[in-house]
Amino acid sequence: MKRDLDQLMHTHHVDALWIMGPTTHNPAMRYFTGDASLTGADLFKRRDQPPLLFYRSMERDEAAKSGLPTRCYDDYPFKIFYEQASGDIAQASALRFQKILTDLGLDQGRIALYGKIEFGPQFDLTQRLKQLLPAVEFLGFSEDPILLSAMMTKDEDEIERIRHMGQITAQVVAQTADFLSGHRVNNGILVKPDGNPLTIGEVKRKINLWLAEKGVDNPEGTIFAIGRDAAVPHSTGNPDDVLRLGETIVFDIFPCEAGGGYYYDFTRTWCLGYATDEALTLYEQVLSVYRQITQELKPNTFFKTYHDRTCELFEAMGHPTVRTNPTTQEGYVHSLGHGLGLHVHEYPVSGAYAKESRDILVPGTVFTIEPGLYYPEKGMGVRLEDTYAVLPNGEITRLAEYPLDLVIPIREV
Amino acid sequence: MKRDLDQLMHTHHVDALWIMGPTTHNPAMRYFTGDASLTGADLFKRRDQPPLLFYRSMERDEAAKSGLPTRCYDDYPFKIFYEQASGDIAQASALRFQKILTDLGLDQGRIALYGKIEFGPQFDLTQRLKQLLPAVEFLGFSEDPILLSAMMTKDEDEIERIRHMGQITAQVVAQTADFLSGHRVNNGILVKPDGNPLTIGEVKRKINLWLAEKGVDNPEGTIFAIGRDAAVPHSTGNPDDVLRLGETIVFDIFPCEAGGGYYYDFTRTWCLGYATDEALTLYEQVLSVYRQITQELKPNTFFKTYHDRTCELFEAMGHPTVRTNPTTQEGYVHSLGHGLGLHVHEYPVSGAYAKESRDILVPGTVFTIEPGLYYPEKGMGVRLEDTYAVLPNGEITRLAEYPLDLVIPIREV
Repeated sequence: MKRDLDQLMHTHHVDALWIMGPTTHNPAMRYFTGDASLTGADLFKRRDQPPLLFYRSMERDEAAKSGLPTRCYDDYPFKIFYEQASGDIAQASALRFQKILTDLGLDQGRIALYGKIEFGPQFDLTQRLKQLLPAVEFLGFSEDPILLSAMMTKDEDEIERIRHMGQITAQVVAQTADFLSGHRVNNGILVKPDGNPLTIGEVKRKINLWLAEKGVDNPEGTIFAIGRDAAVPHSTGNPDDVLRLGETIVFDIFPCEAGGGYYYDFTRTWCLGYATDEALTLYEQVLSVYRQITQELKPNTFFKTYHDRTCELFEAMGHPTVRTNPTTQEGYVHSLGHGLGLHVHEYPVSGAYAKESRDILVPGTVFTIEPGLYYPEKGMGVRLEDTYAVLPNGEITRLAEYPLDLVIPIREV
Repeated sequence: MKRDLDQLMHTHHVDALWIMGPTTHNPAMRYFTGDASLTGADLFKRRDQPPLLFYRSMERDEAAKSGLPTRCYDDYPFKIFYEQASGDIAQASALRFQKILTDLGLDQGRIALYGKIEFGPQFDLTQRLKQLLPAVEFLGFSEDPILLSAMMTKDEDEIERIRHMGQITAQVVAQTADFLSGHRVNNGILVKPDGNPLTIGEVKRKINLWLAEKGVDNPEGTIFAIGRDAAVPHSTGNPDDVLRLGETIVFDIFPCEAGGGYYYDFTRTWCLGYATDEALTLYEQVLSVYRQITQELKPNTFFKTYHDRTCELFEAMGHPTVRTNPTTQEGYVHSLGHGLGLHVHEYPVSGAYAKESRDILVPGTVFTIEPGLYYPEKGMGVRLEDTYAVLPNGEITRLAEYPLDLVIPIREV
């Protein structure tokens, strides 16, 4: 949680976090600024001190909404540094940040860099600052022991926000099921009132509409993939595809609060009208593993344990897994789940390369459980996914309820 | 244009562009990958060679949609590098890219880095690669003479995409005007059929809905700001504010194609029911400058000229400008406009610190013209903005038509 930050900074000998970029769709920044909407900002979180937000004069009202201590860039007039750098804009910017860092007492020490931004300009700035402030060590983390570790455990307000996104997600999934059920069938495919086939592109557009009606964002799109596409986990689905009865549809939806806030993540596999015996068998296998794993979940255990257990269960059914073959494209081809919050993927990590020593399902963790089986050659894939949280009392709870059913009844079948 | 890339790379002695991150909401990547939807990728554009896209096995179908030469990361099995790095994931990733770069002939030379991504992990990777490949110079650009310069000039297809976004934007603006007009008034504020005041939050939700209906994204939100907020250019507007007749509303809308494609950018200033004399005067001044500048626009001239000219015109009317006081918060407080394309802000630059030597309105440039005047103490702001393109024949054209009118008639006034 946020209150752990200072301790984590002490442990890892980091003097400050420097978070760059806009407040929208930029999780590290939004973690501090909440719903304020700034197109560009810098936030300095010094150890044992409150965060300080730098803003552009035009965005002063939005900066104030953050509730944080703030400072305007105009306190460091660009013109001065521009003249000092003889008109070299990049160098002027570096000189300006040299002064800002120095005034903040950050002309030495270790500064960790964060922010979802264009890499090139910030890389150039960092290179220049290394020259200007040789006593500063600038750091980036591949596996982040500070901010992402703090974010891994959510407080009650954060869990409520994710739960609320879960409710919205479940409503939109229900609308989608109703929408599909309401269509007629012609030659084994869904058709619209005008007799033309309904396409995946049209379904996705409806999903976006229902999400927008509820005031949430869908920045990463939706997976709605049928047949062979359903058997390729990250295929988002071909917009021109028609909806053929009996084929597996993987419907994976992960919207977030407006402006890039907390996410939810949810998957169902559907067959319209009926399921083939082969699809039903695959579904029942995934369902039994989903049920087994979610029954076995216990607080304060390693997340990876359940990934290993999933491999074990699928292997016992005769499926290849990422444990028997790390590059398999058939069977169980991904990891069991992932943390989520302001990122759709964050800590805890369940995957094959997670260190045994980390990522325990402690109270406050929020994570997905999403076993799946995929057979591209058979044109078939099944995945079931819900989002879970470990509550402060250790109880593990699913954050939104929705039936796990495979078959969506279609009126005229 | 894209075809200029090799020449620009020659001129600036760059051997390769390395573009990182997802294909959605990541302009540099999307410039090459089009509508393919990959959650994580690396693209290498070597000089005088076609781009090469690395993809994860699960996203192979999406990678194929790009139409580019592709390679799967699994050709470099992570397990090998993980063992070589004794289980250090960050170092394993660096060793893997060392091998990839070496195989691509990029174990020496200058590589420019691009991509809208989390800064920290890529910074760590780059630091490690500098150790592993000391003959490589990694670069980031603050002012990018290669990719952003190529992107500055659009081909006909790109201009058509922006024009199409302009049509959608104008439709949504018309829907917004109709929606407001259709409300009743009580005590000088718009009220809903239930008698409760309409709020800015509700208007914005409708705008998002209409955008979603048309299948486009609105990742950066909309500015819909009334009264004093309208006088602070980047205030997005307070969702709880009511809509009071006669006050200036700045409505700045900048949606993009689904998944983060081409943008449009558009602003109108509205007064509901009537305008005060003071608001009308301010509006007429901005309108006259808008008309003067758009009449004066000529191809192959410096964009900055028109910013200077705008300052001159506003100063002649007695307003402070960023030329008379770079940190002014009253009068004309920003620059005249900006290029747009896959970024809502890109080249050409019109602002005060643009070098005289660059950013000419050559054929293919697409840019906004957006003069404005702001008086926070008077609770009043006016901005008018349209997007223009210089066509191949040198003709300068507005990409969407919409009336510039100030007053939105309200039924019961």
